[in-house]
Amino acid sequence: MYSIAIHGGAGTLTRNQMSPEKEQAYLSTLKESVDKATLVLKEGKSALDAVEAAVRILEDSPLFNAGKGSVFTHTGKHEMDASIMEGQYKMAGAVAGVHGIKNPISMARRVMEGTEHVLLSGEGAMQFAIDQNIAMESEEYFYDELRYKQWQAALKTGSMQLDHTPLDEKKFGTVGAVALDLHGNLAAATSTGGMTNKQFGRVGDTPIIGSGTYANNATCAISCTGSGEFFLRGVVAYDVSCLMEYKGLSLQSACEKVIHERLLSIGGDGGLIGVDLQGNISMTFNTEGMYRAARNSQGFESLAIYK
Amino acid sequence: MYSIAIHGGAGTLTRNQMSPEKEQAYLSTLKESVDKATLVLKEGKSALDAVEAAVRILEDSPLFNAGKGSVFTHTGKHEMDASIMEGQYKMAGAVAGVHGIKNPISMARRVMEGTEHVLLSGEGAMQFAIDQNIAMESEEYFYDELRYKQWQAALKTGSMQLDHTPLDEKKFGTVGAVALDLHGNLAAATSTGGMTNKQFGRVGDTPIIGSGTYANNATCAISCTGSGEFFLRGVVAYDVSCLMEYKGLSLQSACEKVIHERLLSIGGDGGLIGVDLQGNISMTFNTEGMYRAARNSQGFESLAIYK
Repeated sequence: MYSIAIHGGAGTLTRNQMSPEKEQAYLSTLKESVDKATLVLKEGKSALDAVEAAVRILEDSPLFNAGKGSVFTHTGKHEMDASIMEGQYKMAGAVAGVHGIKNPISMARRVMEGTEHVLLSGEGAMQFAIDQNIAMESEEYFYDELRYKQWQAALKTGSMQLDHTPLDEKKFGTVGAVALDLHGNLAAATSTGGMTNKQFGRVGDTPIIGSGTYANNATCAISCTGSGEFFLRGVVAYDVSCLMEYKGLSLQSACEKVIHERLLSIGGDGGLIGVDLQGNISMTFNTEGMYRAARNSQGFESLAIYK
Repeated sequence: MYSIAIHGGAGTLTRNQMSPEKEQAYLSTLKESVDKATLVLKEGKSALDAVEAAVRILEDSPLFNAGKGSVFTHTGKHEMDASIMEGQYKMAGAVAGVHGIKNPISMARRVMEGTEHVLLSGEGAMQFAIDQNIAMESEEYFYDELRYKQWQAALKTGSMQLDHTPLDEKKFGTVGAVALDLHGNLAAATSTGGMTNKQFGRVGDTPIIGSGTYANNATCAISCTGSGEFFLRGVVAYDVSCLMEYKGLSLQSACEKVIHERLLSIGGDGGLIGVDLQGNISMTFNTEGMYRAARNSQGFESLAIYK
């Protein structure tokens, strides 16, 4: 059997700010992403291929804060983070603070498969991208008028925003995917365009194996979205895996315990998606909503934004 | 009661490469570090103060690959990583890829206490250091003839080295400390000068909460040293904590399981130091040795390099 789940970030616009057109656009891109990953899995390709394909579609959309849709940093740049992991050998790759990269998730995979390293960062990582002919895009590709205005507004107030929504809202701009393939292997991938008006080279949980992303055939594959600092301190993705491996919890129970109890106890909000070796899917969040979609070979389907 | 343990890296020189003078110098600096931390703890100060003080002494020594003793990157710079965490509120701070910072561990603490962030990286982090008047040193301060020669040798062969020892050896250049204070709080700190001839902004486990460093009053405080990529994939520091919390293992059993079974099963080598709320200390490694020292208020003392 196969299973796929994707997310486009937790938090979400409140219902009264979401127009029917906007909602339709989000749902349609989520559907495109999960459709593509399903096709990859049906063809017998790897979970790794499926999560990369799903995340690339979300990165290529201007709607989500990742890849093309990345927000502006304090200095008007787009700094992106991504990570990917597979569950059979527990190999992983990640990039932090890269810019101009069309698909950071594919660069993370290149780090995993083409180097002895797990995490490359900043200007050093950019040198790797150039050496490896990783696909780049111009500044115009990443330009978006709405995001630009929000950056200007944030500059004036001196605030940092996790995404492109108004300051008084919480929306965590991350995309991700988890999959089980027909060969019984798990994989997870997560990508983000960071925080609006981000300063000081802040790195959240997205590129961190164990916090934002984790995969292990013995337990589960997890991709997180939320207030990154809390996910780092909670080592959230690996926490789900440990609750399953060491305490015998099911995927759903482990996800609920981590998101509704452990993360909340330190003040964090957000959500995660997970899949286990039996193809079970969990999409758990403690926010107003989470852009999400899922499908498996047993006929399970989900496409939703709000609770 | 109080407990303190420190490490100066796993791997170590083989016995026939270690002169009595060199061995004495290492032991003397380890003793100075553990003495200082003991004094801090006896005065009733926090575990956080103790691990910071211990690591600062190791960072200020040219013998260990952290702070002053940091190795040269590919471009002849010194790029350092550090992280710190306390167990009561599970607050954490970390820096990755910073240069010219005299004591990266104190900068990590400033990130923890002075920002809403956990991890700052690269040039953005340098801007934070300047804004915050973090103590800096000139390039000459970090210059060391032996390290320079090793960098030149590595440049010629195109290899990366984890430390200042010959290429055919394994020595993991990291320093760290874990402590339990009289108030019953735990803390952990880890700092490194990276890999000789390091390229591409490679980040290891040292600045990653959950992998290189973790502290939680419910379980333990852990600082790791070893082949960083394997520690990242194994989420090693948090794995020890989870084995204690979810499976009920003792600190020593958890450390042994992680270092001798789980880390080895993915091909990783290195070690870690840990302390729990009862003041128990574990110093566990699967390498030839680990520079280490420990002390507690019950009279336990240790100062050693080899097994």
